[in-house]
Amino acid sequence: MADVIGNMKRNNMCGNLTTDNIGQEVTLMGWVQKRRNLGGLVFVDLRDRTGICQVIFDKDVSEEAFNRAEEIRSEFVIGIRGIVRKRQSVNPNMPTGEIEIFVEELKIFSQAQTPPIYIEDEDEVSENLRLKYRYLDLRKPKMQKNLIFRHKITKIVRDFFDENGFVEVETPMLTKPTPEGARDYLVPSRVNPGKFYALPQSPQLFKQLLMVSGMDRYFQIVKCFRDEDLRADRQPEFTQIDVEMSFVDIDNVLSINEELINKIFKETLDVNINLPIERMPYKEAMERFGSDKPDTRFGFELKCLNDIVENSEFKVFSGTVKKGGDVRGINIDGYGDSFSRKNISKLEDFAKTYGAKGLAWIKITEEGVNSPIAKFLSEDELNKIVERFSAKAGDLILIVADESDVVYDSLGHLRVEIAKRLDILNKDEYKLLWVTEFPLFEYDKEEDRYVAKHHPFTCPMDEDIHLLETEPHKVRAKAYDIVLNGVEIGGGSIRIHSSELQQKMFKALGFSEEQAWEKFGFLLEAFKYGTPPHGGIAYGLDRLVMLLTGNDSIREVIAFPKTQNASSPMTEAPTYVEVKQLEELHIESAVE
Amino acid sequence: MADVIGNMKRNNMCGNLTTDNIGQEVTLMGWVQKRRNLGGLVFVDLRDRTGICQVIFDKDVSEEAFNRAEEIRSEFVIGIRGIVRKRQSVNPNMPTGEIEIFVEELKIFSQAQTPPIYIEDEDEVSENLRLKYRYLDLRKPKMQKNLIFRHKITKIVRDFFDENGFVEVETPMLTKPTPEGARDYLVPSRVNPGKFYALPQSPQLFKQLLMVSGMDRYFQIVKCFRDEDLRADRQPEFTQIDVEMSFVDIDNVLSINEELINKIFKETLDVNINLPIERMPYKEAMERFGSDKPDTRFGFELKCLNDIVENSEFKVFSGTVKKGGDVRGINIDGYGDSFSRKNISKLEDFAKTYGAKGLAWIKITEEGVNSPIAKFLSEDELNKIVERFSAKAGDLILIVADESDVVYDSLGHLRVEIAKRLDILNKDEYKLLWVTEFPLFEYDKEEDRYVAKHHPFTCPMDEDIHLLETEPHKVRAKAYDIVLNGVEIGGGSIRIHSSELQQKMFKALGFSEEQAWEKFGFLLEAFKYGTPPHGGIAYGLDRLVMLLTGNDSIREVIAFPKTQNASSPMTEAPTYVEVKQLEELHIESAVE
Repeated sequence: MADVIGNMKRNNMCGNLTTDNIGQEVTLMGWVQKRRNLGGLVFVDLRDRTGICQVIFDKDVSEEAFNRAEEIRSEFVIGIRGIVRKRQSVNPNMPTGEIEIFVEELKIFSQAQTPPIYIEDEDEVSENLRLKYRYLDLRKPKMQKNLIFRHKITKIVRDFFDENGFVEVETPMLTKPTPEGARDYLVPSRVNPGKFYALPQSPQLFKQLLMVSGMDRYFQIVKCFRDEDLRADRQPEFTQIDVEMSFVDIDNVLSINEELINKIFKETLDVNINLPIERMPYKEAMERFGSDKPDTRFGFELKCLNDIVENSEFKVFSGTVKKGGDVRGINIDGYGDSFSRKNISKLEDFAKTYGAKGLAWIKITEEGVNSPIAKFLSEDELNKIVERFSAKAGDLILIVADESDVVYDSLGHLRVEIAKRLDILNKDEYKLLWVTEFPLFEYDKEEDRYVAKHHPFTCPMDEDIHLLETEPHKVRAKAYDIVLNGVEIGGGSIRIHSSELQQKMFKALGFSEEQAWEKFGFLLEAFKYGTPPHGGIAYGLDRLVMLLTGNDSIREVIAFPKTQNASSPMTEAPTYVEVKQLEELHIESAVE
Repeated sequence: MADVIGNMKRNNMCGNLTTDNIGQEVTLMGWVQKRRNLGGLVFVDLRDRTGICQVIFDKDVSEEAFNRAEEIRSEFVIGIRGIVRKRQSVNPNMPTGEIEIFVEELKIFSQAQTPPIYIEDEDEVSENLRLKYRYLDLRKPKMQKNLIFRHKITKIVRDFFDENGFVEVETPMLTKPTPEGARDYLVPSRVNPGKFYALPQSPQLFKQLLMVSGMDRYFQIVKCFRDEDLRADRQPEFTQIDVEMSFVDIDNVLSINEELINKIFKETLDVNINLPIERMPYKEAMERFGSDKPDTRFGFELKCLNDIVENSEFKVFSGTVKKGGDVRGINIDGYGDSFSRKNISKLEDFAKTYGAKGLAWIKITEEGVNSPIAKFLSEDELNKIVERFSAKAGDLILIVADESDVVYDSLGHLRVEIAKRLDILNKDEYKLLWVTEFPLFEYDKEEDRYVAKHHPFTCPMDEDIHLLETEPHKVRAKAYDIVLNGVEIGGGSIRIHSSELQQKMFKALGFSEEQAWEKFGFLLEAFKYGTPPHGGIAYGLDRLVMLLTGNDSIREVIAFPKTQNASSPMTEAPTYVEVKQLEELHIESAVE
């Protein structure tokens, strides 16, 4: 059989050459980063996945190669054979800057038109253009590093679970619509007219079934799908590291996952995590940080002022407390001078996007307190507030009075926003946190009933089970999230394995037995035949890789992501299809 | 936080206990295989993923545990703590047959109703029942071994590719319909009314784009989808080991894959493959075995008789040759006595299912030739036929005269069928084969044009390129399949990387430039900006695992497979959905 690449055999990669290779004959293949003529020579920067090296065409070495080198343009794909020499003018900015290759043979594999985007990390073009020409965008060293890093993490994860007796099992992609979940992607069935598969939002039910089947320890790195409106960090399809274990309690699950996280940080970033990772109950996270995924790299913690202001003359505060709301604040300690009245007014606008009606502020200066609300508060109240925040000159206290949810949400986001504006977030610092003891339920106003905060198989904490029927909102769950620098990268729970408790749970969710069976029949059926205690966790791989590579968007760590419109400018998916295809699937388009 | 499993901590697995553990206190958790009372003791066989061990409840050891043991039924989930003792009556059929555990503490985690299927490998129930209660079916040791074996293979594959510089990159699941492929599964888009995604039939275009992007070496273990009518070894979703490499020729691709295959066999079955794996051109495979995926564990090779019979008085033979057809046969050497007239007539029926109009036969006995067609052939012709097959007493020659395709197809299947009926196929023998030099095109009668046998980016062999426009049916491709014991487990090709050659290819396929762009626009666009020579391969993981575990159906090595009706008796997917959901997706059901 004849050979596509002729008699040339690549024996080295561009980025790996060092002074150790001097004198050797090497054969390299790659893309032309640039070509220039200088002093009767032709210089080419040749690029492959490993890096760039300088290649020189010299008439005295090979006239034939030199002459053909004239044809070469940027992004041509070529192969060269030549001798590595010590470079005359060392380039300290280039890993291969101490050597260059004098070419004896040139092969042009493929020509290239001028690409519509530059193959350089710094190229600033619209994201749409980047995605349309993703195959060129992925030539950028930064993007290649991201994908290689992602590969490395999945390798570490798989090695870790394999070593620890977990079995990777593939669960179905064509499955049943998710009860109690987000919106599903549906797939019409051709052989079952009128019926639809759903793409999985997660393998939750299957992994629990695998525990029922005695697989004992399961994991999978798996695509999941949610048809939600896209935000910056969402994609229609995303990748989950999915884990489930039998015969475990919370401590077992958390400790093995801490080992995993430690291994990932150690092997990718050479960072040691302090183990065990801090655990913080949900309630504490909300009260201190206004968030169930607090960024603990910085302070600005929330303090409650209810007791100080409940009887204040300032009705905005006292009235809120009387109506059952909260008055809470944060102290931007040490950064008061960074915020002018105008800046504070911008912060207020920000807080309002989270529902706050206003943002009260108190600046502490060397001259005393400076605040538009000072005149409404008694001196004692003002002193107590300042004292609560241990505030000193140069500090800025920001206060929101509102319904509890709004106070947490607005102050929680505000403290992060302020940290960003102050640029005090250290990207190389990694603060990990388990948030635990989540509420089992949350109230769904639209449906006018309690819904499961995690999912309906989450086990309540033993000491709260007696509250299931009487005070469900007080029941805490054996659920846990893992938070990295204020981003939730994973979460899970111990599951209910007793059908008695499961019945109680459904009752609390307002399901009749019939409704419960309709929604979860096959899992309930499975639980009849011997179910081990079990629990697990799932990580968002895209986010994890994003954070570890220091990127701001998961699109930077996904090879072929979709736009906010859930479409691909490159393939033009989704597309119109032929009516014939729809007919075969027993559906019609409702679009004219 | 309280502990689901109380203060019991599992510290051993059932199947791992040996006489080394005698005297130790162990805590085990698992399912009750069976319970029986004997001589004032309660015996329980306790099962987990690793195996079964015998557990004994003795009133003298723990009265409390003994009394509770009465409640235990099959498939209850329990935890026990006890002391390992040497077994009185050793059970040599059980790996743990030399020990037993006397229980000091019992915990019942979960009760169980009598399961609808037995948890035993030998349980013979309908496949439908097995799939409905898959979580019970997967409790069978055999099924657990299959899934663990599958995990092991994917681990080996990933380790191998990682060590060899391949990067695992995830490609999209929601993508564009496949031109020139099988039937797609479609997914309606909510945010792009009237438009549809397709689930990928393979990541073919994406892996080629990754080569254009300079990823150099890619692999992925990935779900693929084809909406075809299901056969025994087909599933709507299946898993592919997908591989692509840049700057390679056929030898590079084949040799690295041979290393992989060798590693898989060595590490899973401790079998050494003879390397290099034999290569056989397509033409030879057809002529010798009537198949492009020949099982070479046995002979019965095809021989052409055209030259012997072209002028025969026997018009069935000579007429076929004159019309351009073929007369070929196989010799079931040594097994002639195994086939009575009645049996041969059954073989004829079998051959007819592949289109053969009949099956001529010649039995060679000690007394001479015995054949219904002997009287139509001259003695010289008969002698020459016997001679061609080197036939001797005890042999049976079977001959088909028909169009070439029908002859190959019917004899190719017949030789395998006969080997099965004779039960001469050794399951522990592994015969691997590369089939190469496939035709680039095949004629599609329905479409009345040539279509690509592999896919339209397959590179023709250099020495045949000149035939592209004049005699396309003669052009061979740089394509290869890997065959294991008569089953194609993978296939691939070197791809076209020159746009000039790609144009010629499209022309041969009968596409106008416009049609080509409509179908493959983004790949053709990508190829403009510098494309490396590249090629790859894809393996069917399900089939590979099936063969290596000695199973007959891929459903035995998939955790949650679908039935022939593409549905799941367990989840009842696919299902009807609410009209509201369809409205959101801008589609209507065409089913009343």
